[in-house]
Amino acid sequence: MTYCVGLDLADGLVLLADTRTNAGVDNISTFSKLHVFERGEDRVLALMSAGNLAISQSVLNVLQEQIADSENAGAGAGDSLMSVGSMFKAAQLVGEAIRTVFAVDGEAMQAQNVTFDVSFLLGGQIRGRQMRLFQIYAAGNFIEATPDTPFLQVGEHKYGKPILDRAAGHDMPLVDGIKLALISMDSTLRSNLTVGLPVDLAVLRRDALAVSLRRRITEQDPYFLAIREQWSEALRNAYKAMPVPEWEL
Amino acid sequence: MTYCVGLDLADGLVLLADTRTNAGVDNISTFSKLHVFERGEDRVLALMSAGNLAISQSVLNVLQEQIADSENAGAGAGDSLMSVGSMFKAAQLVGEAIRTVFAVDGEAMQAQNVTFDVSFLLGGQIRGRQMRLFQIYAAGNFIEATPDTPFLQVGEHKYGKPILDRAAGHDMPLVDGIKLALISMDSTLRSNLTVGLPVDLAVLRRDALAVSLRRRITEQDPYFLAIREQWSEALRNAYKAMPVPEWEL
Repeated sequence: MTYCVGLDLADGLVLLADTRTNAGVDNISTFSKLHVFERGEDRVLALMSAGNLAISQSVLNVLQEQIADSENAGAGAGDSLMSVGSMFKAAQLVGEAIRTVFAVDGEAMQAQNVTFDVSFLLGGQIRGRQMRLFQIYAAGNFIEATPDTPFLQVGEHKYGKPILDRAAGHDMPLVDGIKLALISMDSTLRSNLTVGLPVDLAVLRRDALAVSLRRRITEQDPYFLAIREQWSEALRNAYKAMPVPEWEL
Repeated sequence: MTYCVGLDLADGLVLLADTRTNAGVDNISTFSKLHVFERGEDRVLALMSAGNLAISQSVLNVLQEQIADSENAGAGAGDSLMSVGSMFKAAQLVGEAIRTVFAVDGEAMQAQNVTFDVSFLLGGQIRGRQMRLFQIYAAGNFIEATPDTPFLQVGEHKYGKPILDRAAGHDMPLVDGIKLALISMDSTLRSNLTVGLPVDLAVLRRDALAVSLRRRITEQDPYFLAIREQWSEALRNAYKAMPVPEWEL
């Protein structure tokens, strides 16, 4: 499994992904699921993936080949994440790449009873345009985060959702967004073994057109260690502080 | 969907189930999913169900017919929840009832691409025997709660699991167990619309061989209202009290 969460805040995007992949529980590996596409002062895009690793890597390969082709062929080349004029077109391009992979591998996977399971979070900004955050489904269609619901999740999303439901707000500062994403991740790590450390963080400040912070957070990271300990403690204390019912037993 | 949680504590069992059933999100009804089988000073059993309502009701009917048959036929009748000598045999009986329903309806459901989706929590005590709590799967096999993991969940279990993972302990008093179950339920209600109020609570004190508390908790219940408000507030406050990272953005 995987857990990726993206927050679309007034000041920018906070993107967090775990790195665990597994085929069964006895074959666990570390793969980055957070990929950044950056071109100085023109654009910054970040793509996070959940689901079948063979599919998500294939989709990424399609997108990277498009970039290589466009760099080699120059003006005559097709669209790529580095050339499209808007985030909406970038999301369409990811959706098309998923459909390309489905056209190649879908039938053979179905024959083996393997679900075509993949989803992406794509966030970023292109010069002169709005910063946006999309969730792209296995069918290649997509939805967008809005100020009403400023977070999107892919993968093992349920354990980490209660705190997002209660604390996420479009106007929260970026550092609070980082904190919230890490707490949401911690709840998931605690309850599902197939989501694992290290986790990859990227923060894209609005209009910076560059990655403002990129960090791989390991088990030794002092801030995340503090979050893990203090959050469990805070939950336990909050639980203890609740009144008990006065019902007769 | 449904959410049912059972806590197997030193002092007894706390059992909590929501009452929402839905066929799609536009056809929502209230059905009790908590059923008590009680015979004064001899036994008390409680059964909670999640999954397809047609299946869970059929299983319940099979079990109730066994009881009726055994009452009518006297000594010559087959086993029923009211006659078996141990909770282990009671769990086997529920498992067999599931298999009976699968034998009748499984193939026709498969033909309509409807999954045979059902699971039960069965808790209780029979005179002279241990109190036990089982989770019974759609295949009719089952597992049991232990002091190491004193809770079992069926249905939409993920949202309410982080607080159970952190706060549940076999030695907690029953009132704390009620509080914890309600907090876990609240997290689920908040994040999944298809789990809904009212919720049904039953507490079986160890060796009482009777239901010590049975309560339907509605939206107007003052204690649950307090839990709902204070828990959201406590989570938000715990979140606010966490430090923010000192990473440069």
